[in-house]
Amino acid sequence: MRGKLMASYLTGLIGSGIGPSLSPPLHEREAAHHGLNYVYRLLDTDRLGQDVGDLLRTARRFGYDGLNITHPCKQAVIPHLDELSPDAAMLGAVNTVVFDGDRAVGHNTDWTGFAESFARGLPDAPTRRIVQLGAGGAGAAVAHALLTMGADHVTVVDADAARATDLAAQLAARYGRERARPAPQDDLPGLLEGADGLAHATPTGMAHHPGLPLPAEVLNPGLWVADIVYRPLETELLKQARALGCRTLDGGGMVVFQAAHAFRLFTGRTPDAERMFAHLNDLVTA
Amino acid sequence: MRGKLMASYLTGLIGSGIGPSLSPPLHEREAAHHGLNYVYRLLDTDRLGQDVGDLLRTARRFGYDGLNITHPCKQAVIPHLDELSPDAAMLGAVNTVVFDGDRAVGHNTDWTGFAESFARGLPDAPTRRIVQLGAGGAGAAVAHALLTMGADHVTVVDADAARATDLAAQLAARYGRERARPAPQDDLPGLLEGADGLAHATPTGMAHHPGLPLPAEVLNPGLWVADIVYRPLETELLKQARALGCRTLDGGGMVVFQAAHAFRLFTGRTPDAERMFAHLNDLVTA
Repeated sequence: MRGKLMASYLTGLIGSGIGPSLSPPLHEREAAHHGLNYVYRLLDTDRLGQDVGDLLRTARRFGYDGLNITHPCKQAVIPHLDELSPDAAMLGAVNTVVFDGDRAVGHNTDWTGFAESFARGLPDAPTRRIVQLGAGGAGAAVAHALLTMGADHVTVVDADAARATDLAAQLAARYGRERARPAPQDDLPGLLEGADGLAHATPTGMAHHPGLPLPAEVLNPGLWVADIVYRPLETELLKQARALGCRTLDGGGMVVFQAAHAFRLFTGRTPDAERMFAHLNDLVTA
Repeated sequence: MRGKLMASYLTGLIGSGIGPSLSPPLHEREAAHHGLNYVYRLLDTDRLGQDVGDLLRTARRFGYDGLNITHPCKQAVIPHLDELSPDAAMLGAVNTVVFDGDRAVGHNTDWTGFAESFARGLPDAPTRRIVQLGAGGAGAAVAHALLTMGADHVTVVDADAARATDLAAQLAARYGRERARPAPQDDLPGLLEGADGLAHATPTGMAHHPGLPLPAEVLNPGLWVADIVYRPLETELLKQARALGCRTLDGGGMVVFQAAHAFRLFTGRTPDAERMFAHLNDLVTA
């Protein structure tokens, strides 16, 4: 009889302040195109007042098939999992948990999401020397993606110098000492003069953190500029960069592809990422 | 932007030993015909080891829009609700809870399910004198339905004489002393001789409780016989009754219509009950 039953999927997002998340419509609408019965719910830690381990266990008992995990739980969730994918283990961060029988398995689709977005949006961009601003969780995923895709060198800059040093040390240990180093913020002008591109991975430019993450005058037309901020898609940084003639990549691609890759992990189906792009555009411009 | 989001529904069933329940496919497949994104999950109290109040609160916090409630929780759930429909209050039993904003509202679609099944399956059946065997929760719903639909008199019989007396007293208080009374099991032969129909509301005849709930020789061809057992649809009782020439009603209709009425409460959509019937038949004969 089992074969006669439809598959149904119950998924969601655990994190803080996730009310405005676009993941529910992104996932649910793509699922509808596949004829899947698929519900995506927001489990906000602020509202639920439980730690991520409790939330994970309860969600599983209440019928969830998998969860996305976001700030501030991507590291905290790890001790509550039975298994990690190699890249989630290496990054020390999980954004997708799949309940597979009795096991909770952690994955990271942030870095694969950025990687696919970069390959799609900036094909053939030179990656000999990249400056990355922002060394938090998103920054770790971005730098990992860039080096995995073959970038020769990433210089990591952060307002918190220790954080830049830590991430650069992790990257150097993983990819070789010659491929990553930290640098102080004051060095940005000189670094960007000799760079192929700038990867921006801080929250500045978001609707609630408007403005530029660095002085506009340090940009030059020879740079590509990739932003991970996606609300709005057109950040002040990208606007200034485009005005200069830089090739740019907005944060929408990382959102779409991290969601698409999580969707594939949850369902085994390959989503139509271009359709999800169109949908994200509808959602952010609505 | 809200208008651009698809509606999605997360529902389920709280009860004990509900693994074999057909509610998930019945609800989910009907929802698919409506183009609804609708997940129905089983929250088994045996597995989850929490009381119905905790389960209800947690399910709501974890994104559920509503729940069906079954044995042994239909009464126990009541103190955890904010509001009851008048009929659920009168029956003292809830099989459907709808989370409506901040409120949890209890309904009873068991009795409306039986009523609609009876009207469909035994149209114009005489209901002057009905004998009902079984005075548990299902029996209360069935007797309520029969008297609400205008039956003149229901005689309640149960192996537990006190339970029959209690239910008959409740029915008499509600519908008038002349419309309900209890009787001992030994009186069944005489009662059925003068009756229009027999409503059977005990578990006997289910796959795990095979057999006849009363001696076959007390049946007569002038009776209609309605069974609430639905696994199998063809119970030993109905088989014997049909062999005698009785009009019969199996338990499938009550299952379908209680589910259909709950579906309408959860979604605001009117399901196609005939389509759900066809689906139930597929499910129980598969």
